[in-house]
Amino acid sequence: MITEEIKLKVRDIVGSENVLESSVDCFGYSYDSSFVPMSADNVPDLVVIPSTTEEIAAVMAIAHEHSIPVTPRGTASGRTGGCIPVQGGISLALHRMTKIIELDERNMMITVEAGVRTVDVYNFCAEKDLFFPPDPASWKYSTIGGNVGENAGGMRAVKYGVTSNYVMGLEVVLADGSIINTGGKAIKNVTGYNLTQLFTGSEGTLGVITKAILRLIPMPKVRNTMQLMFPSLDNACNTIHKMLMSGAVPAAAELMDRISLQAVARHRKLDINPSIEACVVVEIDGESNEDLQKQAAKIDMIANEFEVAEVRIAASQQEVDEIWAIRRGLSSAIGAMAPNRLGEDISVPRDAFPKTVRLIRKIAEKYNLTIAVYGHAGDGNIHPSVLCDLSKPGEEHKVHAAVDEIFDAALSVGGTLSGEHGIGITKRPHIAKALGESGINALKMVKQAFDPKGILNPGKVW
Amino acid sequence: MITEEIKLKVRDIVGSENVLESSVDCFGYSYDSSFVPMSADNVPDLVVIPSTTEEIAAVMAIAHEHSIPVTPRGTASGRTGGCIPVQGGISLALHRMTKIIELDERNMMITVEAGVRTVDVYNFCAEKDLFFPPDPASWKYSTIGGNVGENAGGMRAVKYGVTSNYVMGLEVVLADGSIINTGGKAIKNVTGYNLTQLFTGSEGTLGVITKAILRLIPMPKVRNTMQLMFPSLDNACNTIHKMLMSGAVPAAAELMDRISLQAVARHRKLDINPSIEACVVVEIDGESNEDLQKQAAKIDMIANEFEVAEVRIAASQQEVDEIWAIRRGLSSAIGAMAPNRLGEDISVPRDAFPKTVRLIRKIAEKYNLTIAVYGHAGDGNIHPSVLCDLSKPGEEHKVHAAVDEIFDAALSVGGTLSGEHGIGITKRPHIAKALGESGINALKMVKQAFDPKGILNPGKVW
Repeated sequence: MITEEIKLKVRDIVGSENVLESSVDCFGYSYDSSFVPMSADNVPDLVVIPSTTEEIAAVMAIAHEHSIPVTPRGTASGRTGGCIPVQGGISLALHRMTKIIELDERNMMITVEAGVRTVDVYNFCAEKDLFFPPDPASWKYSTIGGNVGENAGGMRAVKYGVTSNYVMGLEVVLADGSIINTGGKAIKNVTGYNLTQLFTGSEGTLGVITKAILRLIPMPKVRNTMQLMFPSLDNACNTIHKMLMSGAVPAAAELMDRISLQAVARHRKLDINPSIEACVVVEIDGESNEDLQKQAAKIDMIANEFEVAEVRIAASQQEVDEIWAIRRGLSSAIGAMAPNRLGEDISVPRDAFPKTVRLIRKIAEKYNLTIAVYGHAGDGNIHPSVLCDLSKPGEEHKVHAAVDEIFDAALSVGGTLSGEHGIGITKRPHIAKALGESGINALKMVKQAFDPKGILNPGKVW
Repeated sequence: MITEEIKLKVRDIVGSENVLESSVDCFGYSYDSSFVPMSADNVPDLVVIPSTTEEIAAVMAIAHEHSIPVTPRGTASGRTGGCIPVQGGISLALHRMTKIIELDERNMMITVEAGVRTVDVYNFCAEKDLFFPPDPASWKYSTIGGNVGENAGGMRAVKYGVTSNYVMGLEVVLADGSIINTGGKAIKNVTGYNLTQLFTGSEGTLGVITKAILRLIPMPKVRNTMQLMFPSLDNACNTIHKMLMSGAVPAAAELMDRISLQAVARHRKLDINPSIEACVVVEIDGESNEDLQKQAAKIDMIANEFEVAEVRIAASQQEVDEIWAIRRGLSSAIGAMAPNRLGEDISVPRDAFPKTVRLIRKIAEKYNLTIAVYGHAGDGNIHPSVLCDLSKPGEEHKVHAAVDEIFDAALSVGGTLSGEHGIGITKRPHIAKALGESGINALKMVKQAFDPKGILNPGKVW
């Protein structure tokens, strides 16, 4: 319960124009990009839109004093309900904190506020020939705070790693309003526990990330794209494995299964041979065209060892765009196949990719559902899309039962519930299966240490 | 106080041959490879040498019940006193846990027990053309458990990162004897908090690391070594910076200052031009000799832009060995210059390397001490070696005052107290300066959560 007195204090801190409380305004902060249905239960009591760390610290101190739930939020691009304020209270929206504080070219690091969009970090660095690789699908509107909070991945992870691989230091406001700085610009740093990596991926449950120091790398000078069509999914995966082993590590290696390809073919009126079981889109990058040609030749050779049906090496930017259009258009193409679609995110040991896809096919058959499978095959991160019509009686139950079995399948091959979307609300019922009782207890101990009153993003993760 | 009854129980668990309690035996477990002087205060009451995780869990449960301090230990190669049992109790020595559990070639991962030596991991993988890059100076005798516990670095960190970059998952026995597994073989994994990285570098204070899943990469096919002699330290650093920016990332970039070079020249009877202010030893690796030649040419060109005095590219394995002999012989060469030597480990933003070296020179002048400086210039990790004669009255005080100022210098340029050695006992008095009160509080909260009785490696870190 947020009293008028508390509201007054909060307005004093951030300015009354940055506090929303009408039901219409607050409703806009009750949902995200996940499949969590909209609900009046998820509407925050107050939306607070601070512009500085000090304001956040002051708001947290009040929330702590009065035990008010606080749910941090970037641009709500999350896929698991992470920023949905399921227990009401304050939605703490960081989208005004958009300062790029410093680009340190000599140390190849950038310091930004949490509300800066990922694409803006990328572009700002690219102008100086520096490269911030993490590229979650939402990168054009997701924020760095959200990306760090969820440890976002993306297509380039196979070569360049995920967000956590680039986070050097953080400024974090803790539950009680105290401010801490973790890590820094020293590349090697073993002073104290690695709180930087503890906060990264903690989904807003341990503290509010307000600033990040991000590592950059030199921008690759040239890039190209290849498309490999395989009659056999296993051989597609074998090709990717051998590419990685050979040292010709692609900057991206995206795999689409037959259902995904058919969806794209229908949507974009393309002619794709129905005997093709898997299409792999590979991005290569390097220092020179000669370097690219070598990589392409090596990949071509490997793919031929594994009976590739067709290898296309883009000869122009137009061809690059054509190839990527298939992968980039996939989500809407799949979306167009059925009234509803539940997109999931599991991650398995790279080796288990084909087995997992086969297990998912069996689950689809069992429940008589269409499940399109695509994903970042280079790192074992699979996105199964369950196509459905939730207006049909019993369909929702069936879909959830299928997704449950998909999670079981991932765990059965040594994988995990989420590669890059986080746990949030949607995967919460499954986390105990993944981590076991002592694993969950360890998470709870950490949570209890940082947030003894349980006010930070309550109702998430476990 | 460990009663006879408790000792009996512990003997039952690990076998009486694996419990040491004579004062002579226990004395051997009271020191490590740091400069912490030997002391009767640091002798454990009992040395326990388990061979399985279950034995460790059972021992921890007893220790927890009776509030007995437990200090985990690998091969005591640590440089900051991390395994010294400053509060007595049990020295838990893991050197019998030497099983390589699995080399998973397809997923490029190896699972090992904590007591496996780093060199054995390297060699086991190398046979299959797989590469475990972390190479702390102690790698021929240090253990994986110790390396993970301290987040060990090494020379190759500039290109390949430190130990934490290779830890995919851990088995950890917590203070109360419960066993948890963190992470796994899925490359992307955002299920729950990143406990893997929290335990990595926690110096045995949060749990006993018993197993690790380590990521591997393909072994580079060829390697070569270059030696660059610079009349100017700044230009040596500028060369390294430009190499990194140019995409020609060396596998190692080791810098030695004039004092270090003179020490080696004297020790190995080499003729080194006294006008040389810095020597940089660069390792390059790649897929082909042509690739190496290109890298070498690029580095040569860059070094010439920055007025290098001499560039030597090894033309044979003998020449490689000759060049590395200078760097590898450095520690003993410096050691031979004075009766005592205190080797430190600070880490600064890469850019601040030359400034920090100059600050250290001023400190040396102020205290009238000889301080040799060398380090991993590619990642800003500096090892100043204070040469001294502790038998001289007042010398110890002077040395410690100088080291204090070296830490202050590191912090003043945005650096940190330790790049790869950890905090342990020796840097403990300084950590509050580095992390601030709220930073230390955050560490204490985590410690309290995992080890409420404070039995795990007490007296360390802060």
